[in-house]
Amino acid sequence: MKTYGVIMAGGGGTRFWPLSRKSRPKQFLNLSGKDTMVMDTANRLSSIVDKDDIMVVTSMAHRDMTIQLTKGTLKADHILGEPAARNTAACIGYAAMEIVRKYEDGIMVIVPSDHFVKNEVEYTSVMKDAVTLAEQTNALVTVGIKPVFPCTGYGYIKNTDMKYDIDVIHTPRKVVEFVEKPDLETAEGYLESGEYAWNSGMFVWKASTILQYFERLLPDIYEYLVKIGDAMGKSNEADVINELYPQIPKISIDYGIMERADNVLMLEGDFGWNDVGSFDALEQVYGTDEWGNVRMADACTIDTKDCILYGACSDKLIATLGVKNLVIAQTDDVVLVCDKSKAQEVKQFIDAMDGTPYSKFL
Amino acid sequence: MKTYGVIMAGGGGTRFWPLSRKSRPKQFLNLSGKDTMVMDTANRLSSIVDKDDIMVVTSMAHRDMTIQLTKGTLKADHILGEPAARNTAACIGYAAMEIVRKYEDGIMVIVPSDHFVKNEVEYTSVMKDAVTLAEQTNALVTVGIKPVFPCTGYGYIKNTDMKYDIDVIHTPRKVVEFVEKPDLETAEGYLESGEYAWNSGMFVWKASTILQYFERLLPDIYEYLVKIGDAMGKSNEADVINELYPQIPKISIDYGIMERADNVLMLEGDFGWNDVGSFDALEQVYGTDEWGNVRMADACTIDTKDCILYGACSDKLIATLGVKNLVIAQTDDVVLVCDKSKAQEVKQFIDAMDGTPYSKFL
Repeated sequence: MKTYGVIMAGGGGTRFWPLSRKSRPKQFLNLSGKDTMVMDTANRLSSIVDKDDIMVVTSMAHRDMTIQLTKGTLKADHILGEPAARNTAACIGYAAMEIVRKYEDGIMVIVPSDHFVKNEVEYTSVMKDAVTLAEQTNALVTVGIKPVFPCTGYGYIKNTDMKYDIDVIHTPRKVVEFVEKPDLETAEGYLESGEYAWNSGMFVWKASTILQYFERLLPDIYEYLVKIGDAMGKSNEADVINELYPQIPKISIDYGIMERADNVLMLEGDFGWNDVGSFDALEQVYGTDEWGNVRMADACTIDTKDCILYGACSDKLIATLGVKNLVIAQTDDVVLVCDKSKAQEVKQFIDAMDGTPYSKFL
Repeated sequence: MKTYGVIMAGGGGTRFWPLSRKSRPKQFLNLSGKDTMVMDTANRLSSIVDKDDIMVVTSMAHRDMTIQLTKGTLKADHILGEPAARNTAACIGYAAMEIVRKYEDGIMVIVPSDHFVKNEVEYTSVMKDAVTLAEQTNALVTVGIKPVFPCTGYGYIKNTDMKYDIDVIHTPRKVVEFVEKPDLETAEGYLESGEYAWNSGMFVWKASTILQYFERLLPDIYEYLVKIGDAMGKSNEADVINELYPQIPKISIDYGIMERADNVLMLEGDFGWNDVGSFDALEQVYGTDEWGNVRMADACTIDTKDCILYGACSDKLIATLGVKNLVIAQTDDVVLVCDKSKAQEVKQFIDAMDGTPYSKFL
């Protein structure tokens, strides 16, 4: 069965402001120093899925930009635009319907567009096993991340050993339950037990299989998907999507299906994954200098420790003296100076400035 | 006797980097929000001295800029250029010689170009008294600042009551001695005693009088000044100055003359004076908001206390979250982030970057 990549690129990404803007969310930033996150993701995925079969689902507002950014790598008609953000269930259902109606069926390898992976060889190995597993078992397969510290910022997947007679390198595991972001004590218990993995939001399954789950567990959404599917390839396709898509109930695939499905398997990935959820994650992505500073900027630092310096502009300098534990991000028109412990609260600026004369900086 | 203003504007001003640059030292910045410091100084002085009689002594490298900045206010031929910085004795001697040779004699009102004065009415009153005093007594008159806290960053002038039968508003005081920057304990003693004033570097005297002091106390320098004076108004004036001025020994007027002269008087000034010696002084100049922040920038501040935010650029934002006691200064090409307690060490950047590819930011 043919394999399709589905890159979910619909996020608004407010936690990297001022690098990310309304007009250019995080997945369209070059945070790796190599390429935009969406292109890094496409390139990484291309070791598992033919580039011609990789789709991107993004906001309609960012569709043209996505086509430009992925030009020469991905097919323009594989860049799907959502007229409104309706969370991951709608996004995945839309892509599944596209595959079933236009290409009969296929294995979907669904990945977020804005995560970082250090070890791409291991990533490829795990994802290939996930494809094999999904094809041979009809299961919903997810890739959990082997936790390396008691993180309170991720959801966890409780899982258990299981014998599967399938020729894969990584042992398939049975998912027991999905659990919410824990407090520190709980997270420490999870880490110690060895029974929990981080929920990375990466999924592999047959398009036809997930649509069966939609029909059974999310019938409201399924009804919309079928109507949209019926219009696919017809002259009124865009009109139908524009009318119906914004009406689809907002629910995540985790809440809507994964937590309630019966046949969910997990492969454990240990490939230096990071969801790059806020500025402080850049320490894991880039590493630090001898003073603990991340230096992704032209910077002159004196008596400066454990800071994250990021310049998204050319020919500008960050100069620091006698400071520590700061995030400093400089763009052409904004400089952010934030205590590192508050890095996850940067989205507060969006609320603070929306509707003010400063909203032009959002 | 006619009165002349002499604005000393030869400083390099590294303590306001990145606002100040090699090409534009502090005295040419608009830190007050009104005008450049040199123009603020000229305007302030114009209540005591006719604008046509105000001179500026600055580096030859900044002479053209000074002429442009003061155009329409000061006479271009009163902007004197120093071929090299030789400290205040040379600067004052040069101006005195200019006055004696070109205008016979006059009272010189000598002020730094980069200080701030809050109460200009009181300033005018004190300075006018200083002119009267200098004219009637032939003394070297300085204006000491009534100290308001035990500052360790200024030199002090020990002074004592004295009966003078002169019609001035402010009581003339006899200078006992000039003392160096004290430690905190000593400064506290000075403040308590009431016998000490801050040395502001403002002087009033007859040009002929100070030249007599040069002849007696700094004969080496006097010799250069006479040679330069002999060339004044002649075709070789520029050549002589360019050749001789850089050879004048470097010494301050305080060390060279004030501390050694016998007839030194002081008037005490209490007019909201500040030498604006570093970024933290901006708190005194501007005052703070309810969170203790100086806001001289487009800024969105969340959970931000006791910071100094200064934007020397248009249409750029400073955004802060969870920080305190920082100086953040943004220009078109540099952002400085500095702990407020280190504000006086900003000049370290000059040494750190000189000769590196970043020297273009100096």
